[in-house]
Amino acid sequence: MALSKTLNELASQVGGEVAGDGDVVIHGVAPIDEAVEGEITFLNHPQYRRFLRECRAGAVIVGPEAFDEPQGRRLNLLRCSDPYIAFAKISQLFCPAPRFNGQISPGAYVDESAIVNEGVTIFPYAWIGARAQLGPGSVVFPGVFIGENAVIGAECVLHPHVVVREGCRLGDRVILHAGVVIGSDGFGYAGKGSGRVKIPQTGIVVIEDDVEIGANTTVDRATLGRTVIKRGAKIDNLVQIAHNVTVGEFSVIAAQAGIAGSTRIGKNVTLAGQVGVVNHIEIGEGAIIGPQSGVPQSVPAGAVLSGGVAAAPHHEWLKVMTLLPQLPKLWTSVRRLEKQLAHLLQTVEKEPDRDAGR
Amino acid sequence: MALSKTLNELASQVGGEVAGDGDVVIHGVAPIDEAVEGEITFLNHPQYRRFLRECRAGAVIVGPEAFDEPQGRRLNLLRCSDPYIAFAKISQLFCPAPRFNGQISPGAYVDESAIVNEGVTIFPYAWIGARAQLGPGSVVFPGVFIGENAVIGAECVLHPHVVVREGCRLGDRVILHAGVVIGSDGFGYAGKGSGRVKIPQTGIVVIEDDVEIGANTTVDRATLGRTVIKRGAKIDNLVQIAHNVTVGEFSVIAAQAGIAGSTRIGKNVTLAGQVGVVNHIEIGEGAIIGPQSGVPQSVPAGAVLSGGVAAAPHHEWLKVMTLLPQLPKLWTSVRRLEKQLAHLLQTVEKEPDRDAGR
Amino acid sequence: MALSKTLNELASQVGGEVAGDGDVVIHGVAPIDEAVEGEITFLNHPQYRRFLRECRAGAVIVGPEAFDEPQGRRLNLLRCSDPYIAFAKISQLFCPAPRFNGQISPGAYVDESAIVNEGVTIFPYAWIGARAQLGPGSVVFPGVFIGENAVIGAECVLHPHVVVREGCRLGDRVILHAGVVIGSDGFGYAGKGSGRVKIPQTGIVVIEDDVEIGANTTVDRATLGRTVIKRGAKIDNLVQIAHNVTVGEFSVIAAQAGIAGSTRIGKNVTLAGQVGVVNHIEIGEGAIIGPQSGVPQSVPAGAVLSGGVAAAPHHEWLKVMTLLPQLPKLWTSVRRLEKQLAHLLQTVEKEPDRDAGR
Repeated sequence: MALSKTLNELASQVGGEVAGDGDVVIHGVAPIDEAVEGEITFLNHPQYRRFLRECRAGAVIVGPEAFDEPQGRRLNLLRCSDPYIAFAKISQLFCPAPRFNGQISPGAYVDESAIVNEGVTIFPYAWIGARAQLGPGSVVFPGVFIGENAVIGAECVLHPHVVVREGCRLGDRVILHAGVVIGSDGFGYAGKGSGRVKIPQTGIVVIEDDVEIGANTTVDRATLGRTVIKRGAKIDNLVQIAHNVTVGEFSVIAAQAGIAGSTRIGKNVTLAGQVGVVNHIEIGEGAIIGPQSGVPQSVPAGAVLSGGVAAAPHHEWLKVMTLLPQLPKLWTSVRRLEKQLAHLLQTVEKEPDRDAGR
Repeated sequence: MALSKTLNELASQVGGEVAGDGDVVIHGVAPIDEAVEGEITFLNHPQYRRFLRECRAGAVIVGPEAFDEPQGRRLNLLRCSDPYIAFAKISQLFCPAPRFNGQISPGAYVDESAIVNEGVTIFPYAWIGARAQLGPGSVVFPGVFIGENAVIGAECVLHPHVVVREGCRLGDRVILHAGVVIGSDGFGYAGKGSGRVKIPQTGIVVIEDDVEIGANTTVDRATLGRTVIKRGAKIDNLVQIAHNVTVGEFSVIAAQAGIAGSTRIGKNVTLAGQVGVVNHIEIGEGAIIGPQSGVPQSVPAGAVLSGGVAAAPHHEWLKVMTLLPQLPKLWTSVRRLEKQLAHLLQTVEKEPDRDAGR
Repeated sequence: MALSKTLNELASQVGGEVAGDGDVVIHGVAPIDEAVEGEITFLNHPQYRRFLRECRAGAVIVGPEAFDEPQGRRLNLLRCSDPYIAFAKISQLFCPAPRFNGQISPGAYVDESAIVNEGVTIFPYAWIGARAQLGPGSVVFPGVFIGENAVIGAECVLHPHVVVREGCRLGDRVILHAGVVIGSDGFGYAGKGSGRVKIPQTGIVVIEDDVEIGANTTVDRATLGRTVIKRGAKIDNLVQIAHNVTVGEFSVIAAQAGIAGSTRIGKNVTLAGQVGVVNHIEIGEGAIIGPQSGVPQSVPAGAVLSGGVAAAPHHEWLKVMTLLPQLPKLWTSVRRLEKQLAHLLQTVEKEPDRDAGR
């Protein structure tokens, strides 16, 4: 039953050039240090080159760069311009997405006014509210909550315990991993102390086509209007997206990053892990923000910023941390030294004249 | 059916003064760039002033400060001392909290010894343990877990998949957003390696009246005694509150902040996003801690602290990061320069005397 | 019914020496400021010494160090080499883990091909997939999802809404707190923009014996192969463990830390709260990384690193943050000053010679 392909067939399907035995039969993918005969693997990071010597894989996907085969070994290679994409495609081929039965479990609750298109699979303990809509082929795992008037597009996958609150809208092929919360109330209050008033969060969240969101990430609904995650954006686990934020097309946000309210993230932006972005700013198209960076103001398109601090030996770091707050003082000292020295230089330079004049 | 009010009526309900047509009829709220006739909007951030020119709203809530109307336009204004509070109140008026049916779904599990007061709504797949109590008017969404002996006050809202573990206690009007976990075990072990022993976490969590907690936030139960979130505190998404922490009245904690064990956060404290606070310290009343700051020691009341590092261009930042650990060395260099220069100055200043004495 | 022990009996069970009345009867544990007659407490932090004066506990567990009893008071002491371990053991004695009924609720879904060993308790609304296995004595709380072919060892506790996705494997005595997600897809894509391709995440997660994982933490499945959490590791709340990471035996990871893909954390490593570790590196055995640190490269065994920045008064911090990016410029200024001064010193030192030569 399992799919089999020759290396030549794979090369013609994903592009790339075979070096070695193109007739070798491949039926699966495996990591470089575990792959055996019949399996294809790939070299995704230079530090795994050391595994090549012992590699018993049926074939290895490699990039266009020079490639030294281990002495005395003969590996079958699939050389590709982008080996990572080739690997992704071959992996999709051998490990196709699971198929579901397209049925609504009697153990689920589906409001009678909900619109469930054909081929939708709903597992037990899912709860679908009034007038919610589910596009064809979507899968709703156990414990998923879909609020009233929420709209889920076609071929979406909502993993266990995903929450999509009332009125929020998902496009097609959206994947929400376990525990994702879409449309929780934004964090908005007016006033202070005992006079503080909750601002109703009456907007929604709109998630466009081909977005994927990682486990336990939270996306708040807008105060008014919409929080928007645009087409093709990919968001990792435990990320916080506040109310009225826009995440641009194809942007990538790594784990534990947080974006405060009303900020606009442009197209093709990359936020690395644990980045924090303040509210009401814009991150321009294609900007890249390094891990743990804080972003306190708008960032122009194409900027590459970092703000993360590399950990150093603890005792040395303590000294650095004692001195860091004194940086202004140090700066003042240096400025004073510069003046004093300049003045002194003038004095000393005059002296020879004075001497000369004697 | 929908509520309608004239601008004059709104002004008298929330306070504030009308400029323009007080008889204009309002039936909803909308963002400044989307509002149309019959809707009221507000100007909550200076950068949205640019939308005023095109604004088609029936009325705009503004603050007491000078306000330049766009040329050639006539907007109806509701001028308020605190426009944000006025907006909150008007929004509550037009978007009242949803009402629930006050019934216990037969698809929920409610232990026969649980005490469920009148008007409580329990959705399918909720699980209520032995001797748990639910105050009048509270709402328990699908998938909520309420452990044995837990107590939920009146008019609380527990969104989907909230977990309130055994023995924990909530006051009245507490809102817990989807995925919140109250009363998970604190992170406590004694000893090391294979000799490590789990310390039973036998305390509880107490959450007082009018607290709101954001999606997927976790609040650990005390080792012994109580973890306490006091009256009116507001906590955002993905926040970590460790065992035995106290969060003071009306304090505000933004997304992804974390507070380590036994720390006491005073009244009216503000922790911005991604702040980290170490264990066993106190943050004094009214203190404000800026985004991403680390707080390694107690903070006096009223302090305003920051520790976040602003992201800078990557290549320049790399240089800064290379030099930062050498700050003590730089400091030493400057001190040495100061001494040398002082000594040199003495020498040079003596010279004229010497000259003079010749 | 409740357990009672004399202080002498406790001393012989956990080790340690009694000072005072060894016949005093103890039936529970309580915090130092709440404990009354019949309860034992312990002094776990120096700052709680102040409570000793008023302490009404039946006995206090203390360490081997000198201990000044409050004037005029006579406390019964249990003096132990490691009071924290003694407290843990006594607490386990008086607060034993709850027992469950060992039955499968008819309100749960258990696939007919799943293998459920004896003594397993499954609560309502749990969902157990095809061919999943549950070891003897394990407890599955409401809303837990166990995917197809997943394996849960003996005496595990899966708190409400835990997700263990298909094929993942847990050892014995594993505790997963509420909302933990095991086996969500790793964050892996190839290509860019509209050409981006999802890399199937076909590996699994392996969690060894005696691991405990805190609420809402996420552990991604491997792209290929395994993400591994080794024996005895303890992981706090809201932690992110990316695909193909290995966490070593007995390592401890505090709340909100994040570990990027393929990184290997050694044995007995400690990561404090909010630490971020980049991908494809190794943290050596026994290393300790302080709170909020960023770890951009491999760390040798035994290293003790810090990178967290202590919050400082906001206005001063603003100045520091303005100057920090200019650190290279400051460094250059100091170097120039050093050269100029050295040159000047030479000149001036020559002068006396010149004078002398006159």
